[in-house]
Amino acid sequence: MQTAKLSSKISESCGLFGLWGDAEAVRLTVLGLYALQHRGQESAGIVSTEGENIYEHKGLGLVSDVFDEIALSKLKGSCAIGHNRYSTTGSTSAENIQPLLVDYKWGKLALAHNGNLVNATSLRQNLEATGSIFQTTSDTEVIVHLLARAKDSSFLSGLKKALQKIRGAYSLILLNENLMIALKDPHGFRPLCFGRLSNSFVVASESCALDIIGAKYEREIKPGEMLIFSKKNKMRSYFWTKHLRQCACIFEFIYFARPDSRIFGESADGARRQFGRRLASEHPVFSADMVIAVPDSSNSIALGYAEKSGIPLELGLIRNHYIGRTFIHPSQDGRDFGVRIKYNPVQEILQGKKVVLVDDSIVRGSTSQKLIKMIRSAGALEIHMRIGSPPIRFPCFYGIDTPTRKELIASHHSVEQIRKHLGVDTLGYLSLKGLLEVAPLSPNEFCVACFSGDYPVKYEKNYNKFGMEK
Amino acid sequence: MQTAKLSSKISESCGLFGLWGDAEAVRLTVLGLYALQHRGQESAGIVSTEGENIYEHKGLGLVSDVFDEIALSKLKGSCAIGHNRYSTTGSTSAENIQPLLVDYKWGKLALAHNGNLVNATSLRQNLEATGSIFQTTSDTEVIVHLLARAKDSSFLSGLKKALQKIRGAYSLILLNENLMIALKDPHGFRPLCFGRLSNSFVVASESCALDIIGAKYEREIKPGEMLIFSKKNKMRSYFWTKHLRQCACIFEFIYFARPDSRIFGESADGARRQFGRRLASEHPVFSADMVIAVPDSSNSIALGYAEKSGIPLELGLIRNHYIGRTFIHPSQDGRDFGVRIKYNPVQEILQGKKVVLVDDSIVRGSTSQKLIKMIRSAGALEIHMRIGSPPIRFPCFYGIDTPTRKELIASHHSVEQIRKHLGVDTLGYLSLKGLLEVAPLSPNEFCVACFSGDYPVKYEKNYNKFGMEK
Amino acid sequence: MQTAKLSSKISESCGLFGLWGDAEAVRLTVLGLYALQHRGQESAGIVSTEGENIYEHKGLGLVSDVFDEIALSKLKGSCAIGHNRYSTTGSTSAENIQPLLVDYKWGKLALAHNGNLVNATSLRQNLEATGSIFQTTSDTEVIVHLLARAKDSSFLSGLKKALQKIRGAYSLILLNENLMIALKDPHGFRPLCFGRLSNSFVVASESCALDIIGAKYEREIKPGEMLIFSKKNKMRSYFWTKHLRQCACIFEFIYFARPDSRIFGESADGARRQFGRRLASEHPVFSADMVIAVPDSSNSIALGYAEKSGIPLELGLIRNHYIGRTFIHPSQDGRDFGVRIKYNPVQEILQGKKVVLVDDSIVRGSTSQKLIKMIRSAGALEIHMRIGSPPIRFPCFYGIDTPTRKELIASHHSVEQIRKHLGVDTLGYLSLKGLLEVAPLSPNEFCVACFSGDYPVKYEKNYNKFGMEK
Amino acid sequence: MQTAKLSSKISESCGLFGLWGDAEAVRLTVLGLYALQHRGQESAGIVSTEGENIYEHKGLGLVSDVFDEIALSKLKGSCAIGHNRYSTTGSTSAENIQPLLVDYKWGKLALAHNGNLVNATSLRQNLEATGSIFQTTSDTEVIVHLLARAKDSSFLSGLKKALQKIRGAYSLILLNENLMIALKDPHGFRPLCFGRLSNSFVVASESCALDIIGAKYEREIKPGEMLIFSKKNKMRSYFWTKHLRQCACIFEFIYFARPDSRIFGESADGARRQFGRRLASEHPVFSADMVIAVPDSSNSIALGYAEKSGIPLELGLIRNHYIGRTFIHPSQDGRDFGVRIKYNPVQEILQGKKVVLVDDSIVRGSTSQKLIKMIRSAGALEIHMRIGSPPIRFPCFYGIDTPTRKELIASHHSVEQIRKHLGVDTLGYLSLKGLLEVAPLSPNEFCVACFSGDYPVKYEKNYNKFGMEK
Repeated sequence: MQTAKLSSKISESCGLFGLWGDAEAVRLTVLGLYALQHRGQESAGIVSTEGENIYEHKGLGLVSDVFDEIALSKLKGSCAIGHNRYSTTGSTSAENIQPLLVDYKWGKLALAHNGNLVNATSLRQNLEATGSIFQTTSDTEVIVHLLARAKDSSFLSGLKKALQKIRGAYSLILLNENLMIALKDPHGFRPLCFGRLSNSFVVASESCALDIIGAKYEREIKPGEMLIFSKKNKMRSYFWTKHLRQCACIFEFIYFARPDSRIFGESADGARRQFGRRLASEHPVFSADMVIAVPDSSNSIALGYAEKSGIPLELGLIRNHYIGRTFIHPSQDGRDFGVRIKYNPVQEILQGKKVVLVDDSIVRGSTSQKLIKMIRSAGALEIHMRIGSPPIRFPCFYGIDTPTRKELIASHHSVEQIRKHLGVDTLGYLSLKGLLEVAPLSPNEFCVACFSGDYPVKYEKNYNKFGMEK
Repeated sequence: MQTAKLSSKISESCGLFGLWGDAEAVRLTVLGLYALQHRGQESAGIVSTEGENIYEHKGLGLVSDVFDEIALSKLKGSCAIGHNRYSTTGSTSAENIQPLLVDYKWGKLALAHNGNLVNATSLRQNLEATGSIFQTTSDTEVIVHLLARAKDSSFLSGLKKALQKIRGAYSLILLNENLMIALKDPHGFRPLCFGRLSNSFVVASESCALDIIGAKYEREIKPGEMLIFSKKNKMRSYFWTKHLRQCACIFEFIYFARPDSRIFGESADGARRQFGRRLASEHPVFSADMVIAVPDSSNSIALGYAEKSGIPLELGLIRNHYIGRTFIHPSQDGRDFGVRIKYNPVQEILQGKKVVLVDDSIVRGSTSQKLIKMIRSAGALEIHMRIGSPPIRFPCFYGIDTPTRKELIASHHSVEQIRKHLGVDTLGYLSLKGLLEVAPLSPNEFCVACFSGDYPVKYEKNYNKFGMEK
Repeated sequence: MQTAKLSSKISESCGLFGLWGDAEAVRLTVLGLYALQHRGQESAGIVSTEGENIYEHKGLGLVSDVFDEIALSKLKGSCAIGHNRYSTTGSTSAENIQPLLVDYKWGKLALAHNGNLVNATSLRQNLEATGSIFQTTSDTEVIVHLLARAKDSSFLSGLKKALQKIRGAYSLILLNENLMIALKDPHGFRPLCFGRLSNSFVVASESCALDIIGAKYEREIKPGEMLIFSKKNKMRSYFWTKHLRQCACIFEFIYFARPDSRIFGESADGARRQFGRRLASEHPVFSADMVIAVPDSSNSIALGYAEKSGIPLELGLIRNHYIGRTFIHPSQDGRDFGVRIKYNPVQEILQGKKVVLVDDSIVRGSTSQKLIKMIRSAGALEIHMRIGSPPIRFPCFYGIDTPTRKELIASHHSVEQIRKHLGVDTLGYLSLKGLLEVAPLSPNEFCVACFSGDYPVKYEKNYNKFGMEK
Repeated sequence: MQTAKLSSKISESCGLFGLWGDAEAVRLTVLGLYALQHRGQESAGIVSTEGENIYEHKGLGLVSDVFDEIALSKLKGSCAIGHNRYSTTGSTSAENIQPLLVDYKWGKLALAHNGNLVNATSLRQNLEATGSIFQTTSDTEVIVHLLARAKDSSFLSGLKKALQKIRGAYSLILLNENLMIALKDPHGFRPLCFGRLSNSFVVASESCALDIIGAKYEREIKPGEMLIFSKKNKMRSYFWTKHLRQCACIFEFIYFARPDSRIFGESADGARRQFGRRLASEHPVFSADMVIAVPDSSNSIALGYAEKSGIPLELGLIRNHYIGRTFIHPSQDGRDFGVRIKYNPVQEILQGKKVVLVDDSIVRGSTSQKLIKMIRSAGALEIHMRIGSPPIRFPCFYGIDTPTRKELIASHHSVEQIRKHLGVDTLGYLSLKGLLEVAPLSPNEFCVACFSGDYPVKYEKNYNKFGMEK
């Protein structure tokens, strides 16, 4: 097979967007999804309402593939929620495209989810044992089943009861004909903020989706908080559970979020600059000619490193933004073009130079290894690799598509072993202590389980669904 | 109509790639076209041969849209040429997709062209008057007609005669069952280089297309030079016309080429760094907090400015790479989302700061104006705009899709008027003298007609085809 | 809006096909669906298994649109079930495409359904009230929910219990990794037959789907019978309920089935020939020049009429088979092209002639009216319309997409009134008595509710879902 | 490879339609192409004008695939010409889709062609030798080149001169901003008629395309006649060459035309009925139970046979109209499904019966052989095959895609040998004498070269284009 997939190092699950009360809600939701496209590129969907009916359009592909004028003409109403999905391996089926839309005892309900439940398997087994059927493989369907089973008289008390049964990470947006609800799990693992656009309300995974429509950022939604948007443009906040310790995913700051976004109330670029400066303090390089970033995700970290170290930043690696998610490559003679298609080292810059190569993280190490080989071929004399985060040793159970422990290079290799494997002269990771000291929230407000193995929410023993750790 | 096109400021016509003598020629040509995608995104095509037949596949869209395994299975042979096209307004028809493939007296011929002829209109009129029919609106068809009309006994002498009739810019690759020919016009307006991959030969508009397939860069093809590749992997060079003064398009260095490319034998990034440094000398800003680039085209220039001025570079504008070439936007209330969809200013960085904003050029000024307004809204106190090239006052007749003079803001406004129009505190353009002093070739080897109005090759008076100057 | 839909007069719901135990099961299932394409053209789907996993491919459109080699490469295994769907108005959404595939307590289950439940609304309300969620609007999902809710220790006893709760018409094929099950409701409203192909078993809505793959027809499945196909190519028959009076849909004989099919054990063409002969006896025309059919559905009936009456058959109406299900037509001036696009009267045949026009049935009368006008324009002197079935006065609740009573012309007009409305010289319907006397089963083995209003299975009062009778 | 093509026995080249002077010209042209879809299913195209510009839309596939509302919105004007193409093997490329649209000395010209030139190869060689380039493989391009080369002062005299150089079959419709021209070659090989719709003019290959838009049939265009339609809805007729003997393709009557069409001024159905009656006289069957047709092309002939012989017609073969032009079939075990997918014999009708099987013609004999095997398997006791035309012994050079002589079974086998090969009890072909005696024109007005080898227009010796006779 000669068509390959450009593997991002790590994949997150979703981008969420919701807009309550604007005549152009659907079009603005498309814009919001454009801005959140980096959080998921496998499928996109929008559900809207004008207060009486629910409209839906979903499809596989980028937002620009899924939505055209014909699709938009079907989506009516001044309220809409949208979703970008990064489906995990093997699940690119149409059934899993979000928002999920169902009929149940309280009418119709659409639900968009970012995160991962750690007790989904047992909940699903219990639900199936007592008569539920499942048509998708996503955790989102578990949540709706629990809501449908709630023996409560009202939707809101039923929702509360359903949420109390699930454990894990979930930023959710729900929509029916009367309400839009945005909420976070009690630990607030995944980002979700809200803002205003004239009289309407906007919620989004990252603030860059507010910026694109010209909305004013208000604040991050809090762990355990539920914002209820209702007719006549009313909003009320409500804590559906006691506030637990916030466990903001630190990888959102390291890698996922766009640098121009605020997440968890703080600037992603600002955090990365700090990581870069601290990295320069912890792992200086004394005789380097230049700092280069692995573009674009490491740009801010590299800039921080350059600033602190005084070593000039150079654009030594160029990224090709035009290739799609799959590409065609030659194969008969074993030549490997995967990394070369995405990045090109600039010989004129690198030739005969001592280079500090800054990356945000190392997962499997295979991409880094090829990149380093290319940089050597371009003539670099020395390569000093600097990583803006600690070694990733543990898989994530809260919504990030990390590989199993076995595949995480740092889970079973020392830094020196990794250095040799990558073929660099020196290798330095930002320490966990250093990361937390300069990160924009206080240390105990983060989830750092992928570095430390301290999981704030216990995961089920048999957590092996969807290719994860056994 | 609510679907809009993301207008690049200026558009070039094409990317060319050719490979002679590799078992995986077609697949490697796809890779080459990936690397040259920035030069044209409207259509792509490949023509190949195994020495007996000619195979063809073309289509509208990106390389990754046009080529899949089914398409590749039709393209046989160890020799292939490919083309990325940026079609000018209104001509997105299937007929114009290159390479152009025709039957004529010497059999079959495929032709890929980058550039523009200045006497195409009169040649076409003459050809039509004497019995030719035209099925496309491209200059390339004119060249083939002239070749077909040549009363010579051999293809090569006919080709030479045809070339002597055309004036303007043309880097060409031709392919038939026996030969691949790469050539430049006598002034060498547009780039074309060649390299080697084991025993095979590669030609490409930019060296980044050699890098992606691991080919070794040899050198730029010279003005008036013709490289003839023939069976048993032979190559010979031949000057089909006397060598005239080289007129390398300086805009290739300023804007078009990928920074990691060599063009006309020199590094694009290296040139831009020099432009940035010189710009800092000519137009310093004394109390600025930061330099920011309009990404990605101005990154190298901004880095040069930052280096020379000592003002730190910041990532104050983030570009969204995921949107396609058209997008959906709201429209009912006149809100303008065009620029906002592509760029987002980072408030955390810009708030309360004095900013040097570096861009490569200004064409109409409308995108800059919106960008500047967004940067102001993000809280910048002062904006000092610095442009890495002189004011564009004259249209290009050699293959670059500039607007008419009327639309070029600098053709009828002073720098001070433009400054006011854009709404910046100060505005500085790199001087033509400065540009030429630091540019990588000697001053008389460039075409700078867009700045100076000195056209090295006369254009026809009635040059109004395809929306250009009357 | 100027794109219109070619409305068939009456629409049935589905074609079913299943194959147990052939190395080429999936490809043969595609063939089977080709043969059953007349039973549903809105969507198609196949689910297969190799005994361990379940594979699925579904899509909107004709079988030839939905299945290509890429789709087939995903469908593994020697057992497969397929479905052609005629979706009712407004429900062309992807969610409703069958077979329905779910996860539930006994693993995975695929289900293909032909028919309609009369207590679906109340069952659905009860299921939702006690916690079920619905993702489609089809009755099939109700059946799966009931099965999932069954508090039985085994799948088969659960299935039996679920079936006992539903009322209406249902021919079903179910598939999981271990079993394929084909069954009919206790009255056997809809056809389903089985056959053999070497050692494998085949089930299909009509025998033409057995013919296309060269399978040997065995017999019709009986009302209340369940055929269970299990590993090592075993089959056993089982009556899951007491045998009730068979209520074979007589419209299958009149209109739906392909003439080359056996349904309910009898030849469709043979039945139609009898209807035609009887029609000629009941409603002779004494001085006609020719009999013409409304092609192709009335061909057999017209042939019977011609044979019995001695009046020669002519091909006076030609049907265009190439137009798709929607077509473009002019509209500005109210010209009506709908019927003309499908049928063309042959002036050379009709000019100056007295014509017996034979059709199988009249639903709304609007198509007939236009057709008759066209035949008059082609020069026919007299038109004597003869209908191969009694007046349709009552809607069907068992799976046929008839309009509401209000729209059925015969429910509120006398034969004479219809004659005037259509503009024919005489009009004769086959009597119900006549129909039943010559039909291939005994009179009490048919459902003739659409003619008589005697519904063998009571329907819910509020049966107004999907645009039916209130 | 397991996707196969449903080969029609013989393929014609095209359907032509033109409409001059109706506000809905483009939509009516789409209707006209629907009606002519049987003449070509590989591609479709329309060119229109409002008197100033020329608009074009073309694509591969059926008319209903190629034209949608978006396509129609691009096609402006009250004059339009359309074309359905049956491309010959291997030439399904986009370049060949008609109408061909070119720029040349007299501006723009669109041309739709039905037929084949017998001196195309030498004309093309001459044109290429003197400087023309060809971008398609169609004869149509030759015609336009000749016109472009004409050294005349006016378009019409140039056209006349160009036509005088070409030999063969050509019904043409041309369109520019000022004129629509419909013309026939001097022998009038291929049909083309005209009619009126209110004040506008319509031309079409068959009258069924006039019927579908409600136009009034006027008459067939004559050999060597040119109808010129100009502004203010004027029409004039002009003979551009002396009238030669008409050579109407007799196969249009036998097979191609829709039965409801008039071609060459006569009814196709009427002609076929006569062929059938004569066939019954020439080759009676004395003890047969029934006549069956190979549907739908032989229906009229079979009806004529039945009428004359007194043997009743039965619908013993059912054709599946829903499969597309390619289909998926099993292949591993060599089972052959090709014919079975298209036709199904009705066992209930054929079992134990003596059958007269009527077909219109035999080309290679392979489809007939399989069909006969299927009819035997369905239980027919005797099969008496009767063919409504003489043995085809010679290839057609005038636009019908017959195979080479080698593949024509009758060119090298006696009737008795064919009978054995097909496996029928008796075989009878209509005699050429009989055919011509009952055909609707006088014998010397037909081209019967495929039966007699008497070619009215000499073809070039090296006539091996498109896989034909060498």
